[in-house]
Amino acid sequence: MSLRIDAWTHIFPPAYFAKLQTIASAAGPLKRWMELTPLYDLEQRFPADGQVDAYQQVLTPSMPPIEDLAEGQAAVDLMRLMNDGLAELVKAHPDRFPAFAGALSLLDPDAAIAEIERAAKLGAIGFQICTHVRGTALDAPRFQPVFAAIAQRNLAIWLHPVRGPQPDYPTETKSHDEIWWCFGWPYDSSVAMARLAFSGISTGTPNCGSSPTTWAQ
Amino acid sequence: MSLRIDAWTHIFPPAYFAKLQTIASAAGPLKRWMELTPLYDLEQRFPADGQVDAYQQVLTPSMPPIEDLAEGQAAVDLMRLMNDGLAELVKAHPDRFPAFAGALSLLDPDAAIAEIERAAKLGAIGFQICTHVRGTALDAPRFQPVFAAIAQRNLAIWLHPVRGPQPDYPTETKSHDEIWWCFGWPYDSSVAMARLAFSGISTGTPNCGSSPTTWAQ
Repeated sequence: MSLRIDAWTHIFPPAYFAKLQTIASAAGPLKRWMELTPLYDLEQRFPADGQVDAYQQVLTPSMPPIEDLAEGQAAVDLMRLMNDGLAELVKAHPDRFPAFAGALSLLDPDAAIAEIERAAKLGAIGFQICTHVRGTALDAPRFQPVFAAIAQRNLAIWLHPVRGPQPDYPTETKSHDEIWWCFGWPYDSSVAMARLAFSGISTGTPNCGSSPTTWAQ
Repeated sequence: MSLRIDAWTHIFPPAYFAKLQTIASAAGPLKRWMELTPLYDLEQRFPADGQVDAYQQVLTPSMPPIEDLAEGQAAVDLMRLMNDGLAELVKAHPDRFPAFAGALSLLDPDAAIAEIERAAKLGAIGFQICTHVRGTALDAPRFQPVFAAIAQRNLAIWLHPVRGPQPDYPTETKSHDEIWWCFGWPYDSSVAMARLAFSGISTGTPNCGSSPTTWAQ
């Protein structure tokens, strides 16, 4: 039987999950995530995994985005806490978790670049980046050095939508049938990818110093 | 060579185009449409058609939606003016225009149903309906008799997105690279179709008296 690798499975490392509950409200979307026990409870996660032979999970950070939780040093601390935790999970369970993609907050591009260097040494094979940064598009010039830092290390990017449960129509107060993410997330990802591609970042801009194929995996 | 039929080509019939210019501003989106001369000038439209042999166009109304232009009797008059004009074009050029889909305004469902009956007698093979009616979803109960009236006549629906050139991100004022329609229109169509399907209209509701496969073509 061939090995199957799920390349995008979210998780909360234990220390990060404990910290998250001290800084974020349990209401709304966060409550939704916390009800998904396999996100933070390995005992819940492992039996489900065991139902498929020869199956491994590449770990990625769970939502919410760090950009929505903290700024400054607190955001740096959350990046480190998440990435240290992901690295520990991979080290402790290499048969189940062959690799991880790290968390970044892009609010402070210099801090993100420092964390890219640090997490890469911990074994990160790439980074999860959200489709916008508090409403700012990823093709904003200030983010280009972040993409360059990832590309220079030949690492990949997991691009994650961050649209919340907004109504489907302006005359309504609530999305029906999970439409907000089922169609809204592919839309948000498409827009973000188009903006990046048309920004010229993929054809090698002066600020983006590496091969165009690296970051677009 | 096999016949090719383009099943969704917009047009402004001459009398409707003249009327439109008296009631709508030439600024913004309308200016955009008016610059597309084949939309209203058969002399411009025909040579382009002639470059492809064995090619025909099913005519459909050009945007903007009548719901955005008028209410009450003025909206009824616009529906009639558009549908009479489409029927005349089909009658005058049957070799180029084998059929047409009529215009409807759904603001007044009873008026829409009356126009469905009238336009069907003129030869309409279906109707173009917008993905929302001034922000109201198509699964609103008041629109169900309109869908039933179309289904009972075994006619088709052309579902048209109506999103305007909105910014891609809340921090911006203008969409880049035509993203607003290139990705926004498929999103809007997907949402509208999902809402209709999950509303139960496709499985035969009490208010929708015909086969579920008819209107969903």
